[in-house]
Amino acid sequence: MNRPKTVGVIGGMGPAATAEFFRRLIVATPARRDDEHLRVLIDSDPRIPGRTAAILQGGPDPAPRLREIALGLEAAGAELLAMPCNTAHAYLDVIRDAVAIPVLDMLEEATAKIETGPVGLLATAATARLGLYQDAGRRRGLEVLVPDADRQADVTRVIAALKAHPSPGPLREEIGRVVDALKARGARAILVGCTELSLLGRVDESLVWIDALDALVEATVRHALPGRGT
Amino acid sequence: MNRPKTVGVIGGMGPAATAEFFRRLIVATPARRDDEHLRVLIDSDPRIPGRTAAILQGGPDPAPRLREIALGLEAAGAELLAMPCNTAHAYLDVIRDAVAIPVLDMLEEATAKIETGPVGLLATAATARLGLYQDAGRRRGLEVLVPDADRQADVTRVIAALKAHPSPGPLREEIGRVVDALKARGARAILVGCTELSLLGRVDESLVWIDALDALVEATVRHALPGRGT
Repeated sequence: MNRPKTVGVIGGMGPAATAEFFRRLIVATPARRDDEHLRVLIDSDPRIPGRTAAILQGGPDPAPRLREIALGLEAAGAELLAMPCNTAHAYLDVIRDAVAIPVLDMLEEATAKIETGPVGLLATAATARLGLYQDAGRRRGLEVLVPDADRQADVTRVIAALKAHPSPGPLREEIGRVVDALKARGARAILVGCTELSLLGRVDESLVWIDALDALVEATVRHALPGRGT
Repeated sequence: MNRPKTVGVIGGMGPAATAEFFRRLIVATPARRDDEHLRVLIDSDPRIPGRTAAILQGGPDPAPRLREIALGLEAAGAELLAMPCNTAHAYLDVIRDAVAIPVLDMLEEATAKIETGPVGLLATAATARLGLYQDAGRRRGLEVLVPDADRQADVTRVIAALKAHPSPGPLREEIGRVVDALKARGARAILVGCTELSLLGRVDESLVWIDALDALVEATVRHALPGRGT
């Protein structure tokens, strides 16, 4: 069977990042007419318990809700799942265990694109603390630099601001200062490992810039369209 | 019950218009954190049979698939449906008959926003031919001006180009010339009655500019959020 797969999206973490994933997926799909695009089912549920709060502060566990959403998308006809939230990938195994369809791994897809190190990580405190990207980097012999505590607090504040009001504005400058600090410590590439930060676009032209959201978009097109890879 | 309603979106007509609806809905929602946003279920199915082809050329009927999608969204938990495609509103009654939940009427919402006439219509040839907006205008005593055949052909070409590659570019200029022709015939307002054309944004600053997609976004927020109207 060479027909395109229906894509299910576990979304709402946050909503603007999900909308941006959807927009980029449409742009990245080689289509000239409506019917050459992919069918996409999105469940954007912004009341999934907070991932960072669960991981760092023992808040409510998001895993049961993530499973439910994955099962709902599968039941609705999804043949492939994508989850445009890096931190939620801490629960990837739970989701994969729940459904029979493939679930893409944004972190693996993003890490596979890094050819240059050390790489500076822009992500939530939870993603950084869990070492999700550091582990992936280590498997490829790449050094991953995490912002120091003060700079990570700046990143956390920018992520919250983007969730409140998804417009870049002066937030790009704030992230620019974090990037400068990572550059001063030797970073030659930046990995945008939080989909809210993806909304800012490329902040520094002098570094290799890898956006995990783009890596997930590319993997989705590759897996959903026949004759375009695995 | 004052909790927010889950919004279902009958999408994919075209995909970029659906993504733009989703983006504008997030921006228009008064939220400061993820969990203050609306839950949104989107079925973006770009293989729904073409509305214009069905209406003008006797192509395959999209009604059965539109019903199926509406029923699927209702079964998945949607409590309110929105359909960001003007032409598909020719099938609004079929969809309303199929489900028990409310289905918003983008055309009514858009027409309700017009205070100044005559209003020039930018829409598909099918929407224009069926008189969907002319009827709504007549009920409010508003004259609706439709582009002449050559200009309508230009509009049709721009819509197809936006479906192929959703980037405004020179297409804004093409639509600008259609707007100029309508203005010369007395139009004091423009009604953007095709969600692909909504992607272009406001093309003329000298006229009242009403975008049906924005009207649908506002109606969705109003109906989905408690204490914000009907």
